[in-house]
Amino acid sequence: MTKIKITKVETNKRMEEIISLCKRRGFVFQGSEIYGGLGGVYDYGHYGTLLKNNIRDSWQKSMIQDRDDVYLLDSAIFMHPTTWVASGHVGNFDDPLVECRKCHNRMRADHILESFGISADKMPIDFINKELDKLREEKKLKCSTCGLSDITAAKKFSLMIKSNFGSPTDELKEENVVYLRPETCGGIYLQYKNTVDSLHPKLPFGIAQIGKAFRNEIAARQFIFRTREFEQMEMQYFINKKDTKEKYEMWKEARMKWYFEQGIPKDKLQWYKHEKLAHYASEAYDVKYDFSSLGGFDEVEGIHARGDWDLSQHSKFSGVDLSYYDDETKERFIPHIVETSAGLNRLVLMFLDNAYTEDNLGGEKRLFLKLPKQLAPIKIAVFPLLRNKPNLVEKAKEIYDILRKDFICEFDDNGNIGKRYRRQDEIGTPYCVTVDFETIEKDNMVTVRDRDTGNQERVKIDELKEFFAKKL
Amino acid sequence: MTKIKITKVETNKRMEEIISLCKRRGFVFQGSEIYGGLGGVYDYGHYGTLLKNNIRDSWQKSMIQDRDDVYLLDSAIFMHPTTWVASGHVGNFDDPLVECRKCHNRMRADHILESFGISADKMPIDFINKELDKLREEKKLKCSTCGLSDITAAKKFSLMIKSNFGSPTDELKEENVVYLRPETCGGIYLQYKNTVDSLHPKLPFGIAQIGKAFRNEIAARQFIFRTREFEQMEMQYFINKKDTKEKYEMWKEARMKWYFEQGIPKDKLQWYKHEKLAHYASEAYDVKYDFSSLGGFDEVEGIHARGDWDLSQHSKFSGVDLSYYDDETKERFIPHIVETSAGLNRLVLMFLDNAYTEDNLGGEKRLFLKLPKQLAPIKIAVFPLLRNKPNLVEKAKEIYDILRKDFICEFDDNGNIGKRYRRQDEIGTPYCVTVDFETIEKDNMVTVRDRDTGNQERVKIDELKEFFAKKL
Repeated sequence: MTKIKITKVETNKRMEEIISLCKRRGFVFQGSEIYGGLGGVYDYGHYGTLLKNNIRDSWQKSMIQDRDDVYLLDSAIFMHPTTWVASGHVGNFDDPLVECRKCHNRMRADHILESFGISADKMPIDFINKELDKLREEKKLKCSTCGLSDITAAKKFSLMIKSNFGSPTDELKEENVVYLRPETCGGIYLQYKNTVDSLHPKLPFGIAQIGKAFRNEIAARQFIFRTREFEQMEMQYFINKKDTKEKYEMWKEARMKWYFEQGIPKDKLQWYKHEKLAHYASEAYDVKYDFSSLGGFDEVEGIHARGDWDLSQHSKFSGVDLSYYDDETKERFIPHIVETSAGLNRLVLMFLDNAYTEDNLGGEKRLFLKLPKQLAPIKIAVFPLLRNKPNLVEKAKEIYDILRKDFICEFDDNGNIGKRYRRQDEIGTPYCVTVDFETIEKDNMVTVRDRDTGNQERVKIDELKEFFAKKL
Repeated sequence: MTKIKITKVETNKRMEEIISLCKRRGFVFQGSEIYGGLGGVYDYGHYGTLLKNNIRDSWQKSMIQDRDDVYLLDSAIFMHPTTWVASGHVGNFDDPLVECRKCHNRMRADHILESFGISADKMPIDFINKELDKLREEKKLKCSTCGLSDITAAKKFSLMIKSNFGSPTDELKEENVVYLRPETCGGIYLQYKNTVDSLHPKLPFGIAQIGKAFRNEIAARQFIFRTREFEQMEMQYFINKKDTKEKYEMWKEARMKWYFEQGIPKDKLQWYKHEKLAHYASEAYDVKYDFSSLGGFDEVEGIHARGDWDLSQHSKFSGVDLSYYDDETKERFIPHIVETSAGLNRLVLMFLDNAYTEDNLGGEKRLFLKLPKQLAPIKIAVFPLLRNKPNLVEKAKEIYDILRKDFICEFDDNGNIGKRYRRQDEIGTPYCVTVDFETIEKDNMVTVRDRDTGNQERVKIDELKEFFAKKL
């Protein structure tokens, strides 16, 4: 594993530029901004929603349409509270919280220790406090906001968000708590049996789902990388235990291939092997992407061999038999699971981070999003050369009406062509089509301009649809 | 407005059949079923998710790809708590609750009154209790479950679901309450300004969003028609006040057209005009569909002229200017709004209700889903006539691999052809393709069978792709 590089200044500048572009061009806004914002919550504007949906659809296609062994599920955010007792989340899904007594800044104690090179992964709270005491004695323990040294001892802070969903009273009472799911896979385990009973799949098979999950992060930050409300794309692959190694490798390969197919360069991706595993797990790797905007590699997806822990626990707590009977081998057993779990919002950040490019085009500095064509929010923009020439406008609209049936298109007649190119470059539109006087007067051809190279070529209007069908 | 017909027995039988099909074939499952279920919560299986996604995509296409004046938004479920004070939801979004003192069954008092023909829409709680007292004196007030007459007085029950999202403590405290949104349109109002500032749209324009909303329904029932967790598809159209009537009519027409295009017959749809309007509203109609499974017409969508209430309230409570400056008329004003608001889950029920068909085909009774092709979960199923003939299987797989690139397909070699047809009929697959001995030995053609008519025709393998491109 490559050591994570931290280059503070560079990180912030790049991240600020991306955040600024996101707001200015309608990709991502701070949630509830007019009310001063809500911490760790973001809203997706027009282009951001289109981009996020394209990533979602590409993932789903790779799971469902391109394969024969994975089925879809869309289970609810709210689940029976016992679910999270069985999974071990209730009472065990927490982060170590410390607070500055002066400015009330809340911090994660494990992150503080890690900033001093002390690995705090899965460290019990007592040990964390011992390490904090050492730092305190050495006068190294300081608030990240006000810089003062009056920091509380660490205590466990539950990440589970509670609600009065379905409660018989509209007061908020601990005894009526129903949790918001902290991960989407729980729904897959609970509907494993219904899926088997309705679809009759043979092992190995997977269930994939895309949906929201919620965690009361102590310090939500890094823009859309770590938020309290987020979207997961998870797939649970049910297997015979003996096939674990083979299927685990298959999924590692399949998932990495997906990143390559979405245009992420090989040198920006790496495998991070978890050394400390949960007692039931036999293997755990993360896919890490080299975020310029975060200053180094960080997790975008986890691929875990989870044994038979999940189905065994839910079988035990529900009293429902979740075993599988193999017709061929006449064996009955609880299937083992290989899980792939990606964060959709941090993938949006990954694609923006990878696409955000400044270059020189024709002697001018420009900013553009080098998004892979299949993910670009808008595929083609159509312009009349001049907005005050009705015959150009009419012809451009005609072309726009043809292309929009098959592609997400934009029509723009605002400002000069140069400005329109820059606007489309900034949102990552792969192609711009311009109708000019030659189109009308001479050749019935239009200029098609390529986002990445700035190259222009003349294409016959009659052949445009086919031209783009091949390109996009 | 046609009087709603209630035919209790018919309702239940039809609904039970649909619920049974949904579970048996993997459309919809009770949420958390292995733990005894969670009231008013449903999970969507493989085919249900595909169907729901197709409805969602069709709605989005009609809003975004087919129009030039509507933009997307995907705002978070969690919003600043002041949002719901400004909107009037806090303290005012409630239903009248009564409870049976014997069996603790909870009921909506307004529904009880309506069952006696007393319209309780927007009736103050005191008046509701007076009406309940009359029924009590006449010995007509009975528990819907145990039949006894010991019913409490009505009290207001808030539908707002509360959480400790973002709370500095992991205890559940009223002072830290953050609500789950009870409707998705709130996010649109809060991001109206960011949308204008980033996309620079000219009035009139709309913002559309699809997402989850949550209401603590006292009695969630009628399967997926009324659930506590549900998905809305909402569009807010921002206009100059003077255009209200014209734009309201435009949207009424556009939305009704969408239902027709999705194959819902005209006689199963009707407009329901709201007589009692909110003080800020100038017009409100619902689209009602004639649910066989509910025994009559009920709401699937609302189209409301909301005046400038929403933006004015949020402007007032946030202190942020939400006015629009019209370049042409040099006017500055708070835009008025026409809203279209559909329930995605009840649309799933509507399409299932409309598609669920029993007929006689070739002398045999069969059950099939007559779904419009564009909404069917699976478009084409491919079969080898016999599973134990490698050359048939190989050829069928070859065809399947060609078609799956463009269409969601299934391969099935289980059981005889008749059984496979019935399985595909039940999930609404428009076409089945069978490879038989003639295909291999004679004509390189396959049998394409039509779901609705059962008619079969021979199509050349080379022409299959084009054949389906035209049909689907």
